[in-house]
Amino acid sequence: MRPFYRLALLAITALPTMSLADEVTSFTLDNGMQIVVIEDHRAPVVVQMVWYRTGSADELPGHSGIAHFFEHLMFKATDDLAAGEFTATVEAQGGNDNAFTSNDYTAYFQRIAADRLDLVMRMEADRMRDLQLTKDVLETEREVILEERAQRTDSDPGALLGEQMDAAQYMNHPYGIPVIGWRHEIAALSLEDADAFYRANYAPNNAILIVAGDVKPQDVLALAKANYGPLAPSDKIAPRHRPTEPPQLAERRIVLADERVSEPYVIRTYLAPNRRSGDQAEAAALTILAELLGGNATTSVMARALQFDSQTAVWSSAFYNGSSLDPQTFGVAIGPMPGVSLADAEAAMDKVIADFIKAGVNPEELGRIKTQIRASKIYGRDDAMGLAQEYGASLAVGLTIDDIQDWPTALQAVTEADVLAAAAKVFDRRNAVTGWLTPKEEAAE
Amino acid sequence: MRPFYRLALLAITALPTMSLADEVTSFTLDNGMQIVVIEDHRAPVVVQMVWYRTGSADELPGHSGIAHFFEHLMFKATDDLAAGEFTATVEAQGGNDNAFTSNDYTAYFQRIAADRLDLVMRMEADRMRDLQLTKDVLETEREVILEERAQRTDSDPGALLGEQMDAAQYMNHPYGIPVIGWRHEIAALSLEDADAFYRANYAPNNAILIVAGDVKPQDVLALAKANYGPLAPSDKIAPRHRPTEPPQLAERRIVLADERVSEPYVIRTYLAPNRRSGDQAEAAALTILAELLGGNATTSVMARALQFDSQTAVWSSAFYNGSSLDPQTFGVAIGPMPGVSLADAEAAMDKVIADFIKAGVNPEELGRIKTQIRASKIYGRDDAMGLAQEYGASLAVGLTIDDIQDWPTALQAVTEADVLAAAAKVFDRRNAVTGWLTPKEEAAE
Repeated sequence: MRPFYRLALLAITALPTMSLADEVTSFTLDNGMQIVVIEDHRAPVVVQMVWYRTGSADELPGHSGIAHFFEHLMFKATDDLAAGEFTATVEAQGGNDNAFTSNDYTAYFQRIAADRLDLVMRMEADRMRDLQLTKDVLETEREVILEERAQRTDSDPGALLGEQMDAAQYMNHPYGIPVIGWRHEIAALSLEDADAFYRANYAPNNAILIVAGDVKPQDVLALAKANYGPLAPSDKIAPRHRPTEPPQLAERRIVLADERVSEPYVIRTYLAPNRRSGDQAEAAALTILAELLGGNATTSVMARALQFDSQTAVWSSAFYNGSSLDPQTFGVAIGPMPGVSLADAEAAMDKVIADFIKAGVNPEELGRIKTQIRASKIYGRDDAMGLAQEYGASLAVGLTIDDIQDWPTALQAVTEADVLAAAAKVFDRRNAVTGWLTPKEEAAE
Repeated sequence: MRPFYRLALLAITALPTMSLADEVTSFTLDNGMQIVVIEDHRAPVVVQMVWYRTGSADELPGHSGIAHFFEHLMFKATDDLAAGEFTATVEAQGGNDNAFTSNDYTAYFQRIAADRLDLVMRMEADRMRDLQLTKDVLETEREVILEERAQRTDSDPGALLGEQMDAAQYMNHPYGIPVIGWRHEIAALSLEDADAFYRANYAPNNAILIVAGDVKPQDVLALAKANYGPLAPSDKIAPRHRPTEPPQLAERRIVLADERVSEPYVIRTYLAPNRRSGDQAEAAALTILAELLGGNATTSVMARALQFDSQTAVWSSAFYNGSSLDPQTFGVAIGPMPGVSLADAEAAMDKVIADFIKAGVNPEELGRIKTQIRASKIYGRDDAMGLAQEYGASLAVGLTIDDIQDWPTALQAVTEADVLAAAAKVFDRRNAVTGWLTPKEEAAE
């Protein structure tokens, strides 16, 4: 066990009324478990998060949904705890807990009184290696998950279009497969599959522990050593080298017609680079680009042009989140005014993007966006949960504490030329998927 | 070792001037190798084919191209043969040899004087387990394969469109990955990958030996026993359960614009069922449907309507080959007359299909197609190679000798109603990918 490094989070300049100097300390246990402590002594509360470096993009082909399955199964019985006892115990102490799954990670967290950290660590360590999977547990949870999929995806034409678009966006990389899994593969997952997945991936050397709140690093280390230290590492943890994309040579277009659609829209995603460790400048420029183009519902470039000037759109949006292990997407979307066809809405959206690239970035707007980013960063720090989330999500996709702490600087360093260069590169229709969501009545072509 | 069964291939009725009663005998060696002998004593020639039940769809994610790599590597040095010696030996005896790879299998064959069967068996058995892979051999062959890909695919916009369409057609199943492999994955294949792949898949229990020609089954069995019998089976051969498709909910459309395109076209593929063991009726109906619609360049339904009646097309085509392990595609395509836009060509093609379904099948045309199929079957039998190919390709995708021998009957049994039912089911645009190949000048949309 060695103290990894200890760095004060740098202040982001300006906005001098709040201090940004949070204390972040990192350790690594002998069994490979990474520990990050973020001190925040304003309230006697602590957040524990355990992040596994395993998400849906790490599943074996044909076994989609298994990563998300564990987001459910981890609340079932272990050798020491009955099913549901984890959450009941946390709630009895006035805390709350939950879990979530992405393409790249699965995370579990509790927010509880700071003097109860040992309790939640003991339970979290217990379920890391001692979950008691049975056929009954799996079958019951399968029904719950199929219902979750029915509610969230199968009954939502927009979600279905998103799945079909992701599958078309990725020709080779597993981001084309939905996090919740394909229904027929959820239905087919076996106890043997689940057991093998659990034994391989739920282990200290695949986990990142984030503790944020009213705690001292050395106390957290002592507790972590006592609770997680004895856990055996997995010998199945390998570098996450997933299949990468071949050249994408032609835009793919998809029209999903579904009578349940009441508000049609056009959405386009472009393959886009992610934040890479030590090399975050392009992702920073894309982040600013998304904010400028469509980050704000009323003041952004798309909103002004499409909603106010031309009155083509009811809403418009641009979106990008570079925190992923592998390249992902930059998106734009438009919901047309009644009477405006999807084809016209799409053409108007494309014209706005082309005009933006031609006209260049308005320096005042860039300044305003940067100020907003600084401010939201500061507001985000008012919440131990938000900080824990940022550190966990970034570390789980291969970024370092340095990358996390450099990210605000990278965003502030983006120039007008950087934004235009990023836009010129990312808006390549060959890398794009364009989706139309429409009720059946509106003929697509 | 047990004689599996021995069946005369049934005559297909009518066309009584030629006999169809070929002798087919099957055995299985103790090490799991399947042997099929097809007697044909008209010429003192024999064809040996060894089919491995491993193709590109059996590759690990990120390792595309490795199955096809072996189509090259298997001609390199073994412990007993120098690189190139296999082919040189066959040619010195007046024979020839080659190999090919598909999504579902890799096959090696020689055609040689019947009394040289022992020689080619000895060499084929040798390279099944004793290939001497080295880094030099791999690197040299990698260059050859990259050049092959450059020639066949990267310099051919139509081939590139096909790859992009396959990737969009299959949302989950590995048929979306090209047989030759993605260039960047070919470039990255390691000696360790190749060695592991070879040891796992090149083994008698993953192989089917087809011997066709002037031979006696018991003589072939004795030779096979002597040459292949001593080879150890692989413990890595598992049932081929590949990821299957989720519901496809919306057509995908792709426009590939490339200045090298001189003759634009529209091509559409629909996901379609394959021949399933014991259940070939739907595949038979689709086979007939493809023949009726676009199997003949001048007399088929599409040709008459598009090339002669409306003069919309220079050529048109419909295609389907149900011999695959998993569901694949039914395709239609049209090359428009100069001056006809791709949109108009596509609309004309769709109208022909819709009219065909509305009008129903012309019984005379169906009769003509069936007669052609019978005839081509008979002509095909004039060639030991063709028969060996049919048996090998069918057995390698999980069909049985019964299925192969029932197939002509299944085709003759297809009714007008069967064709229409198959058409109504397969022509579902939600399962389709439509591709436009166009020079840059012709704006797509």
